Amino acid sequence: MAAGIQYIIRLHMQREMVPFRQLVELVDTIGGDIIALDLVRAEDERTVRDLTVVMPSDDHLDRLEHALQQLPGTSIENISDRTFLMHLGGKIELQPRVQVKTRADLSHIYTPGVARVVRAIAQDPNKAFQLTMKRNTVAIVTDGTAILGLGHLGPKAALPVMEGKSVLFKWLGNVDAVPICLDTTDVDEIVETVVRIAPGFGGINLEDIAAPRCFEVEARLKERLDIPVFHDDQHGTAIVILAGLMNAAKVAGKALKDLRVVVSGIGAAGTATTDLLLAAGVEDIVGYDREGPIIRTRQYPHRPSWDTYAARTNPNLRDGSLHDIMTGADVFIGVSTGNLLSIEDVDAMAPDPILFVMANPDPEIQPELVQSRARVIATGRSDYPNQINNVLCFPGLFRGLLDSRATHITMGMKLKAAEALASVVRPEELSAEYIIPSVFNRDVATKVAQAVSRAAEEEGVARRISSSLR
Amino acid sequence: MAAGIQYIIRLHMQREMVPFRQLVELVDTIGGDIIALDLVRAEDERTVRDLTVVMPSDDHLDRLEHALQQLPGTSIENISDRTFLMHLGGKIELQPRVQVKTRADLSHIYTPGVARVVRAIAQDPNKAFQLTMKRNTVAIVTDGTAILGLGHLGPKAALPVMEGKSVLFKWLGNVDAVPICLDTTDVDEIVETVVRIAPGFGGINLEDIAAPRCFEVEARLKERLDIPVFHDDQHGTAIVILAGLMNAAKVAGKALKDLRVVVSGIGAAGTATTDLLLAAGVEDIVGYDREGPIIRTRQYPHRPSWDTYAARTNPNLRDGSLHDIMTGADVFIGVSTGNLLSIEDVDAMAPDPILFVMANPDPEIQPELVQSRARVIATGRSDYPNQINNVLCFPGLFRGLLDSRATHITMGMKLKAAEALASVVRPEELSAEYIIPSVFNRDVATKVAQAVSRAAEEEGVARRISSSLR
Repeated sequence: MAAGIQYIIRLHMQREMVPFRQLVELVDTIGGDIIALDLVRAEDERTVRDLTVVMPSDDHLDRLEHALQQLPGTSIENISDRTFLMHLGGKIELQPRVQVKTRADLSHIYTPGVARVVRAIAQDPNKAFQLTMKRNTVAIVTDGTAILGLGHLGPKAALPVMEGKSVLFKWLGNVDAVPICLDTTDVDEIVETVVRIAPGFGGINLEDIAAPRCFEVEARLKERLDIPVFHDDQHGTAIVILAGLMNAAKVAGKALKDLRVVVSGIGAAGTATTDLLLAAGVEDIVGYDREGPIIRTRQYPHRPSWDTYAARTNPNLRDGSLHDIMTGADVFIGVSTGNLLSIEDVDAMAPDPILFVMANPDPEIQPELVQSRARVIATGRSDYPNQINNVLCFPGLFRGLLDSRATHITMGMKLKAAEALASVVRPEELSAEYIIPSVFNRDVATKVAQAVSRAAEEEGVARRISSSLR
Repeated sequence: MAAGIQYIIRLHMQREMVPFRQLVELVDTIGGDIIALDLVRAEDERTVRDLTVVMPSDDHLDRLEHALQQLPGTSIENISDRTFLMHLGGKIELQPRVQVKTRADLSHIYTPGVARVVRAIAQDPNKAFQLTMKRNTVAIVTDGTAILGLGHLGPKAALPVMEGKSVLFKWLGNVDAVPICLDTTDVDEIVETVVRIAPGFGGINLEDIAAPRCFEVEARLKERLDIPVFHDDQHGTAIVILAGLMNAAKVAGKALKDLRVVVSGIGAAGTATTDLLLAAGVEDIVGYDREGPIIRTRQYPHRPSWDTYAARTNPNLRDGSLHDIMTGADVFIGVSTGNLLSIEDVDAMAPDPILFVMANPDPEIQPELVQSRARVIATGRSDYPNQINNVLCFPGLFRGLLDSRATHITMGMKLKAAEALASVVRPEELSAEYIIPSVFNRDVATKVAQAVSRAAEEEGVARRISSSLR
């Protein structure tokens, strides 16, 4: 299918004059594709049909609309956009897991029977994990300050993303995820709000909260709550990158601990990725951001998180331009901005360089430009091989957390999640074009969940041994 | 079915020795009922069967358990309780309303397609009502301080009630209702928390929050939010009582405005009921609580809400004992405490007295004692005629609020909801034993929803004219 936006155009066509061939030529000339022409209904004089097309942009659609209006015997009833249609009325709903058919049913799930369940939980609040939604429900919490790559657009605009995430949680991990979009961007208020709504949830997925605020929100919530708190933009990204890097290093024939890594973009994702790579044994990581390499010989009073970042990275105090620190590096991990790298930067790297260029929508360098120069290239996009996508992590991770009733997420659990994700690509399948599984691979969530459950038990943060491990 | 608790007892029975007759006699002797004896599986030497019984109490179950252990050839594997079984794992789940089967689906509901929906809402936040869960979702918010009649048991113990409510919301009103159980009982904190989580919701149902705190929480939230806020324990109860009273007054041949009413228990429900009855045209209401009749000649420094209550009630300054104010009254509405009324109190009322005795689990007077003395008796229980149950109001009410995208709930809308509910009982059906429809009557929610939608439009608080009214 051509890249672009899918539209559905409802046409009224005079019966004798349906210009199929003209339609196809017309859409083709403008640069789009016809997906379907479905009959909606036939009336005496005319037929009503839905023309589904993919157009490269809204401009192309405007041109098509204009051209269709010129077609003899054809008029446009309306133009819908498949994406918007799928969002109409929201993407999620709450469904009962019990049936109410008789008065006896009602007396079990509501008054008077429910009173006995209430009393049982009042006596032992841990029973909430058996007898309520807490067992299988997480909150997806955002303040709307870093929605996708679009910035601060407010809590209502964040809803479609959180609902999309909820759909993926259920589809891939059978996790019930409730979007909670907060009308505040204040750290104290975010923390207090999440603490207060926490009783009904078995975990908290923080989402699209801007750095550096997200660090403090997460750290303080972890301290206050006895359920796991996970900022997906940080740790989800880090886990999927580490999984990809484990396999990419195998392809390049290098060991993790020997890698020289440049991380570009030291915000939420860059910081968490660095920490996880260090925990996995990588020793030489240089962070790079707007002001150049992050180095402990400098001070960052406007960005204190960079001071602590500098303290644990860049052991050889590399400094200079991006080109300077890229020289001799084995790996470039970009979570920064499009078209930052030049071909010369890549050529200056060590042999068999590995590029994770994940800026959205344009990668740090167009993969086509360096396809023959890099050993492995991964991006954030689905139209290149090796898509680094958080969907590969969060459904399975939270499935494992809920199954084990974990109180926290430890670094060890994140490492095991990355290992499990990497292991879905079998040795005989591994190649430069296949270092990370597809989001449609149903083994992913199962393997990640099992690894996380087991790790929770090993690290002593599990409140329950999941039945599959017994 | 006998009143009591339903249990399922899994029995292992030797094949040749299944003592059916003994079983029946045994359960009967102890005072229970056998509902079913289902075969689970047959093995070589024995059968495994589930014995479903209703027993009056846990004590009776203990006696049954002991007796079963004495039966030859029979052993107990375990005893489950149907109510607890129905609660295992919680009673609600989040389900996608869209399917994800192809990468194209994924690109519509999540990245990159969702970005366009995000931008559309950022430009016009009202689009959240069309394109997100906000259209059909309410939060059921509690602080766990007044759970059923059980008092302050904390937010986790409140979950089963809120989930039960969510089931009823979906079943009867097709409303998606998310339980939010708050880990705070501070008015400021409750208000701030609800304001902050409000963006994703189209309405707020406050639930089981103790008086007098609930008054301030509701008043302040109404001021801060542009979505309706409804404390069900107050207004839901009031609406159902008014609906019942409208019909009861018809049965007794009296007009609302001529009624002399005593309301017993001036907490959340009693106060809201009084206000709604006043708005409906009742003129003479005397409130009664622990300290006697509430009257403006006294001061209530420890309970300021009683001062304002006194200011708008008891126009004739009636004082004295409960018996004194009951003398000559047409209606007694009890939302107070069991066995408060005597037969003499009822006998002192005006001819054709109406009793709403809704204390739980024991009414203000046992209906059997005054059946021949009162014209109409309603209770909160399902084992007497005329059950006053909030389930008759909240699903339809919120359906109407969401359909009209109402910003607020006005007194006019509550009156219309009560009228609609009363009208479900047709004139030819109306009798002393049938003043209020059953919770299983599916017309109820539809009629209430339509009335609320229409009233929202008339009162100028609707953001959308529901299609059924166009």
